[in-house]
Amino acid sequence: MASKPLILQRDPGLENFYKVIVRFGEIGRLSDQPDPLAYAREHAGTIRAMYCAGTLPNLPGLIEALPNLGMICSLSAGYEGLPVDLCKERGIIICNSSGSNADDVADTAVTHVLAQQMKLLSKHNAILSGVFEGGLRNIRRSLMETRIGIVGLGAIGLCTAQRLAPHGCDIAWWGPRDKPGTPFRYEPSLKALADWCHILVITGRADHSNRHMIDKEIIGAVGPDGIIVNVTRGMIIDEDALIAALKAGKLAGAGLDVFEQEPTPAERWKDVPNVTLTPHAGGAGTYSLQRYHDIAAENFDCFFSGKPILRRVA
Amino acid sequence: MASKPLILQRDPGLENFYKVIVRFGEIGRLSDQPDPLAYAREHAGTIRAMYCAGTLPNLPGLIEALPNLGMICSLSAGYEGLPVDLCKERGIIICNSSGSNADDVADTAVTHVLAQQMKLLSKHNAILSGVFEGGLRNIRRSLMETRIGIVGLGAIGLCTAQRLAPHGCDIAWWGPRDKPGTPFRYEPSLKALADWCHILVITGRADHSNRHMIDKEIIGAVGPDGIIVNVTRGMIIDEDALIAALKAGKLAGAGLDVFEQEPTPAERWKDVPNVTLTPHAGGAGTYSLQRYHDIAAENFDCFFSGKPILRRVA
Repeated sequence: MASKPLILQRDPGLENFYKVIVRFGEIGRLSDQPDPLAYAREHAGTIRAMYCAGTLPNLPGLIEALPNLGMICSLSAGYEGLPVDLCKERGIIICNSSGSNADDVADTAVTHVLAQQMKLLSKHNAILSGVFEGGLRNIRRSLMETRIGIVGLGAIGLCTAQRLAPHGCDIAWWGPRDKPGTPFRYEPSLKALADWCHILVITGRADHSNRHMIDKEIIGAVGPDGIIVNVTRGMIIDEDALIAALKAGKLAGAGLDVFEQEPTPAERWKDVPNVTLTPHAGGAGTYSLQRYHDIAAENFDCFFSGKPILRRVA
Repeated sequence: MASKPLILQRDPGLENFYKVIVRFGEIGRLSDQPDPLAYAREHAGTIRAMYCAGTLPNLPGLIEALPNLGMICSLSAGYEGLPVDLCKERGIIICNSSGSNADDVADTAVTHVLAQQMKLLSKHNAILSGVFEGGLRNIRRSLMETRIGIVGLGAIGLCTAQRLAPHGCDIAWWGPRDKPGTPFRYEPSLKALADWCHILVITGRADHSNRHMIDKEIIGAVGPDGIIVNVTRGMIIDEDALIAALKAGKLAGAGLDVFEQEPTPAERWKDVPNVTLTPHAGGAGTYSLQRYHDIAAENFDCFFSGKPILRRVA
């Protein structure tokens, strides 16, 4: 008697996807197992597919333990936690749910822009420590008079610009190529954009070609009065240089949803002034989740019915 | 020899206004004096006008010490810190700089909405304490799926709605009267608005007629899944009821720029969960400041040239 396929849920917190794919097989929650590798080996014969949070690191030895694994599906845009080379060697398909989270990630970018501009955390903490520096004693730059530079005008960058526009900000953007027809001004030099803007918002795609593109020089161009916000990938910024600039007062603040290493170590940020930090939560909204599920369900449907996989990334 | 008029700057932090009004007389900074009342009495003969932050409490005995005072100018919309009855008796004109800060106050409303929706402070503090609950393990309601109820669609309410609209929120508003022609849906019942919305944003004018309009019943209608944001006047909300609801889990969060008592005592908020607090800083932006200065300068010009005062409020 042929067994039903067993579909592995690698990471905790993805339980809601259960109802979407239970029609393809049984679900095995790896993170609930006292010895996940032993569990994987025990069921290796029937495990053909796995889903996970693609930005989290893979469990060492897991892929090797699963000779029948044919597909790994990331329930987000990210898949950098996955062993791409090993999967290619083995012919294991990697697919993601890309392009579905721009609204939520843009909301996150705007949250950091506004919280930084308002100095929300220091004001909040001041009140709790008995200092109420209200009214006109503590004037901030109005968004009506703020110049925003956006790095990368893909779906996330465009959603971010559209959300900031009614605040009266002056908006320009840089990317490797102009996109005629967009309503926002293109600036052909990243350095010139950083010099010009008060707040540089990173919304661009990351790969090894633009690692540390936001380096000491660009950070210095944003300057002691400027703010950097990053919501796409930590590797785009030279994070050591960013931290050094914040500590030296050469950058006024940073709002970060992404980090070079995730989870980012708490001690790395202990004495860094004027940061707002969120845990790669940009796309973690109900609206994106529904889209992740819809796209991932299509991936599973294709895989189990032998059709070409949508959103295949490797 | 007639003395030049002496213009009193009552509160610290208003120094930038100096250049706007120095042409009318000398400036005396009351807050720099070791004994402000003695200083006022000493110069009482030449003090004809005073400017201040209108929301801050007046120095007891100051008005009484100034028999020649003819005008008090608030460098903001607020004037509730001023002794209106006493000024009326004495024929002292009170004027403000109303209507000039809607953009900055709306930015502040949106800052609190986004910070609350993102649970920014608890996420930030979690990272600093070593907990990185990222990705899909911690799903928030997307703004794309959030219903916003706005209380009062004046200049601030309209600016707030316009800024939230591109986030994809569903927006409705309540006020004592419908305003035909506004692009946002009018809800004739405040209770129904509170029942319907996920986030209730208070942007309405306050006076004694609507004190505690946001009472236990309305707070309960916003409910355990809901958020209240207030950026206009603390007295609109029954703050004790708000705090009780937050502590009991009957309201999910609150973002407050204004308080029933200002400065609000730190100990009042020590054990209140899920709040973001800013110190009545809504209008404290460079853009509003320029407008406060422009309007206040007109007030001073009228006063010293004997013309009717613009923006007279009492």
